[in-house]
Amino acid sequence: MRVGILGATGAVGLELIQILESRNFPVESLRLLASERSAGTQLGPHTVVCATPESCSGLDLLFCSAGAQRSRDFAPVAIASGATVIDNSSAFRMDSDVPLIIPEINMGALRPEHKLVANPNCTAIILLMAIKPLLGLGTVERVIVSTYQSVSGAGAAAVQELMAQTRAILDGEVVTPNVLPHQTAFNVFSHNTEIGADGYSEEESKVINESRKILGMPDLKINVTCIRVPVIRAHTESITVEFAGRAPSEEAVREALMRAPGVTVVDDRVRNLFPMPIDAGGIDDVLVGRIRQDLSNPNAICLMASGDQLRKGAALNAVQIAEILVANGTLVPGVMTHRA
Amino acid sequence: MRVGILGATGAVGLELIQILESRNFPVESLRLLASERSAGTQLGPHTVVCATPESCSGLDLLFCSAGAQRSRDFAPVAIASGATVIDNSSAFRMDSDVPLIIPEINMGALRPEHKLVANPNCTAIILLMAIKPLLGLGTVERVIVSTYQSVSGAGAAAVQELMAQTRAILDGEVVTPNVLPHQTAFNVFSHNTEIGADGYSEEESKVINESRKILGMPDLKINVTCIRVPVIRAHTESITVEFAGRAPSEEAVREALMRAPGVTVVDDRVRNLFPMPIDAGGIDDVLVGRIRQDLSNPNAICLMASGDQLRKGAALNAVQIAEILVANGTLVPGVMTHRA
Repeated sequence: MRVGILGATGAVGLELIQILESRNFPVESLRLLASERSAGTQLGPHTVVCATPESCSGLDLLFCSAGAQRSRDFAPVAIASGATVIDNSSAFRMDSDVPLIIPEINMGALRPEHKLVANPNCTAIILLMAIKPLLGLGTVERVIVSTYQSVSGAGAAAVQELMAQTRAILDGEVVTPNVLPHQTAFNVFSHNTEIGADGYSEEESKVINESRKILGMPDLKINVTCIRVPVIRAHTESITVEFAGRAPSEEAVREALMRAPGVTVVDDRVRNLFPMPIDAGGIDDVLVGRIRQDLSNPNAICLMASGDQLRKGAALNAVQIAEILVANGTLVPGVMTHRA
Repeated sequence: MRVGILGATGAVGLELIQILESRNFPVESLRLLASERSAGTQLGPHTVVCATPESCSGLDLLFCSAGAQRSRDFAPVAIASGATVIDNSSAFRMDSDVPLIIPEINMGALRPEHKLVANPNCTAIILLMAIKPLLGLGTVERVIVSTYQSVSGAGAAAVQELMAQTRAILDGEVVTPNVLPHQTAFNVFSHNTEIGADGYSEEESKVINESRKILGMPDLKINVTCIRVPVIRAHTESITVEFAGRAPSEEAVREALMRAPGVTVVDDRVRNLFPMPIDAGGIDDVLVGRIRQDLSNPNAICLMASGDQLRKGAALNAVQIAEILVANGTLVPGVMTHRA
């Protein structure tokens, strides 16, 4: 299959390259696309080329991970030339004719005629991986989330800033934020995306809207507070799930989570060991634990989840979608190439 | 007044020394008490002495900040010798005959006959400073909190560990946690206190029980998730407040918070500037902001708060209690000394 990655030099792009290789995705040729600034960069055996309408054409599969504007610019071109596009940006996620997919949750929404598939927001993916297994245990009415989001969600430059800023502070220097709007080192702050008229950040609105679409629960009551923390990789979430009736027991929740694909339960009260970003980073599964009855509501259960937002929250989920497209015959290696 | 500080070399003890001085508390003599290990340490003009029943006697006022066991050991001795004790530990907080005081909230619970006054848990103080002003706007039914707690809450050694660990990781070294149970640098984890049979950490149970006592609302529904973050100083909290009826407007909440003593509103949606620990550290006020309607419940309001847990969360609150004891005549400089 002729595969392209738009945004190949970004945090998610680099992850995509690795995951395609480690999962033996049937890649005949790999075209790495990025901005003019990054063109010419050598990544292993590949030279990054500048993304243009021409260089985004003639592919069977294009992963877009270069921001919403680039996706709007290049996804239609790639599709017109015969490719299927899996888009990691927010550009098309809420379009009613674009499926928004987490394979473990709603792969049924993916149909062969879809040439554009949207990959959800990372915070939404980690949240939904944790709460989907609970949907079978009762009628979920409301979800309340506070997040602990790593800076790599803001890109590789934000990680560099965190590291440099941290060292500067340890050395007693004064720091001035540049990539992110506030000091990242030894600080926490409300998510850096724009705040809307309702007081919610763009990130929070994404999690709310995308969760409803993915779960097929347009009326789900859900509230989200997104906070950045000085963590390099993996987002953590403190989650309350309220049911219409009495909440399922902690045991029932634990068992449902242990059966859930893509979830590893980390819930050791004796050792005080629960999901942590340093354990979730670099692995495929979302860690879920601290399963306990909400003391303020007999109908609610509390959880913590931690997941690698560059892997399951982005690149891994996108490759899993591509694998489904191969498995269901939408993407056929060696056949698709005739279309271009 | 003959003032003693038990635990003078700890994070809160050092803060107490500074705050007594900066607020011109009427100190005739200051006795710094600590464990045998710290005895002999010179702090400014004072030499730390080993805490014994003898050295804890003959004071007018003793601040205890050396853990619950030391408070149980020495507070009764100090009181028997004529002192009033303000105890920062959890030893006596839930005793029905010991007042648990946040001056801005329940100073009416303080009566002259009280020789032992408990200073609340730091996370509870910051939470209650943020939500107390809302109690006048309706009937608060339920509070949901997720915290972002700094490591100085675990003492000065935990701060040293965070700094050393952070530098080691930046230098590519492998780290082994020692003071706190998990890696602190570039990580978040569930609060390090013991997890009880109900799945809640001791810290979470303290916040729940103490909040009910301080507010005089024994049936308040409240749920807390306490998480440590790699922040040196000041705790941050993501708070949802549910009312019995429709929630007050954002404007009404903002106005109530702006009128509240000890609270500074930081709520700038345009600049995406809300309470942050780097702004809350080292100041007296608790920062409160991100005031917004809960999108999942018309009866709820969401907030963020950030407060210096060593100052308002501990030392400042304790000195404010002492100031009230002076103002209401319980502690009389130059008179109390006759009792010993």
